[in-house]
Amino acid sequence: MIKYYNHEGAFTLESGAEIPGLTIAYHTYGNLNADGSNVVWVCHALTANSDVEDWWPHTVEGDGFLDPGKWFVVCANILGSCYGTTGPLSVNPVTGEPYYGDFPLVTMRDIVNAHRALAGHLGIGKVHALVGSSVGGFQALEWIAAEPERFNKLILIATEAKASPWAIAIDETQRMAIEADETFGDRNPDAGMAGLAAARAIGLLTYRGGEGYDITQQNAAGFDIFSDSHRACTYQRYQGEKLCRRFNAYSYMSILDSFDTHDIGRDRGGVETALSKVKAETIVIGLSTDIIFPPEKMKRLCGMIDGSCYREIDSQFGHDGFLVEHEQLNKILIPFIAK
Amino acid sequence: MIKYYNHEGAFTLESGAEIPGLTIAYHTYGNLNADGSNVVWVCHALTANSDVEDWWPHTVEGDGFLDPGKWFVVCANILGSCYGTTGPLSVNPVTGEPYYGDFPLVTMRDIVNAHRALAGHLGIGKVHALVGSSVGGFQALEWIAAEPERFNKLILIATEAKASPWAIAIDETQRMAIEADETFGDRNPDAGMAGLAAARAIGLLTYRGGEGYDITQQNAAGFDIFSDSHRACTYQRYQGEKLCRRFNAYSYMSILDSFDTHDIGRDRGGVETALSKVKAETIVIGLSTDIIFPPEKMKRLCGMIDGSCYREIDSQFGHDGFLVEHEQLNKILIPFIAK
Repeated sequence: MIKYYNHEGAFTLESGAEIPGLTIAYHTYGNLNADGSNVVWVCHALTANSDVEDWWPHTVEGDGFLDPGKWFVVCANILGSCYGTTGPLSVNPVTGEPYYGDFPLVTMRDIVNAHRALAGHLGIGKVHALVGSSVGGFQALEWIAAEPERFNKLILIATEAKASPWAIAIDETQRMAIEADETFGDRNPDAGMAGLAAARAIGLLTYRGGEGYDITQQNAAGFDIFSDSHRACTYQRYQGEKLCRRFNAYSYMSILDSFDTHDIGRDRGGVETALSKVKAETIVIGLSTDIIFPPEKMKRLCGMIDGSCYREIDSQFGHDGFLVEHEQLNKILIPFIAK
Repeated sequence: MIKYYNHEGAFTLESGAEIPGLTIAYHTYGNLNADGSNVVWVCHALTANSDVEDWWPHTVEGDGFLDPGKWFVVCANILGSCYGTTGPLSVNPVTGEPYYGDFPLVTMRDIVNAHRALAGHLGIGKVHALVGSSVGGFQALEWIAAEPERFNKLILIATEAKASPWAIAIDETQRMAIEADETFGDRNPDAGMAGLAAARAIGLLTYRGGEGYDITQQNAAGFDIFSDSHRACTYQRYQGEKLCRRFNAYSYMSILDSFDTHDIGRDRGGVETALSKVKAETIVIGLSTDIIFPPEKMKRLCGMIDGSCYREIDSQFGHDGFLVEHEQLNKILIPFIAK
């Protein structure tokens, strides 16, 4: 069940701007044990939400690595999103109107500061394990860089310590698609929807990669180029429209902007210095066909964290493999998180 | 110097539609020898043109594999493009107005039929070598499937015999970006320009791939997330705008549509049967970091052509490597084309 925490007073952002009246939506699964030693904090990716059971099937269950019978699992919707936490569609108490395009720039560090505020509210001190995939991993890395002593274990899946030029180029291309839609900028929740659909389709290309499409999107036998739509075309449109039904272009832009600010080395002497302070037992997991965070990059990340181990998941589904390959993930992570 | 061939009578398309008054723009380099045995036909890629010297540096020169001192090199602008050959911005003689969105669907086979008409006009019979990279390779494969006896040698670089679901998904995403721009559909040459810029940026992601961006688009030292633009962002916008200055959204859409119709096996019993008829000595060249036509796919293509050989170019520039790595290309192709 979704819960809400209303943060007292203004929430100051890294830029110096303030958000008055911050609300954080979150889910918990299982129970906090007496000594508070069973907390597993999950950070969600781009357009996901605080309901881990919903977006990460077969992980929050008895056979999963987030077994709620053992762990007190917490996940908060990120700042700027639209699943209950304050974002561009929230009403700005100062104006009495939704923020839309006036929502301030939120950095990955701000997103993590909101998690830290929620953890304080929940009475959580030490966290047994911090888990992040993709942009969730950005948060996990940012958090552990801020509080290296707080975590026993760190689980990083398909992610990086600083947004790469490649990832930033992917984001900028999505911004260009949204901005090509002239309705983006209108002060209503449906602004920029055609652009958002195109942006999602761009994202999907990079999440899935070639092998994924070639396996799942072949045309049926008897396909006729003059009368039929390619299955791959229908798929892109369907996925674009599907996101439009559950998201909005303003939140999407806000999160893309946060993505690009990700650099755990900022004001900390660079990425390597920041990573050298990680004390948690760390596992770094790459996906064999991920084109955003390819195995070579994940191995380099692993190499910068003292005593960390690298494991690779064999998948045909690119970056999205982290959502699909729960069997392999559980097999790796159940012993890692427990030991 | 650009030359034009005006095809007599209506040009019938694979769909049954007719284009009245087809013009084909082309370039030639060097001289046709007495027995007509020195023809090298180059097929250009997506947004290129008939001027090979312009888009493929260091190939059409004394030290290049297209040495005009030896070869009579021909390249024609493809049907639907905007570099002199009939396309959506051409005036429809029936209406006296440009076609814009009314330009008929052109298949890869139609594009090749226009090349064949031009070859007839130029008095070219046998072609010594047929060269195609990327969508140029689509044309080369389609042409050799139509006339397997016409060519001595076939040079295929970073291409495929049938548009894959992956490549089609990339195209559809570009269409979505163009259509998100509400000005697309207006009957003027500047329609859909913001969408076209976004589409180009999408294309670029897939042409360059991660390694290329990470090498060339790192931010300068002292980069400030609150005041500076990421170099990768500036690059995407610059490249999008650059295409808008030399192309139009209607021609771009026309060529994307042609791309997706590519299947040399259509009405020929499938790709493998079509390829089994290739008699030309064939070389298949892959690029080590190409994510559109990765080396594994190029090796599979090679495996379907009897007696063909596979060579791989080591490049950090993804699919665009075919334009960048002219030294490696010349080294491989000068002996291949001559022997």
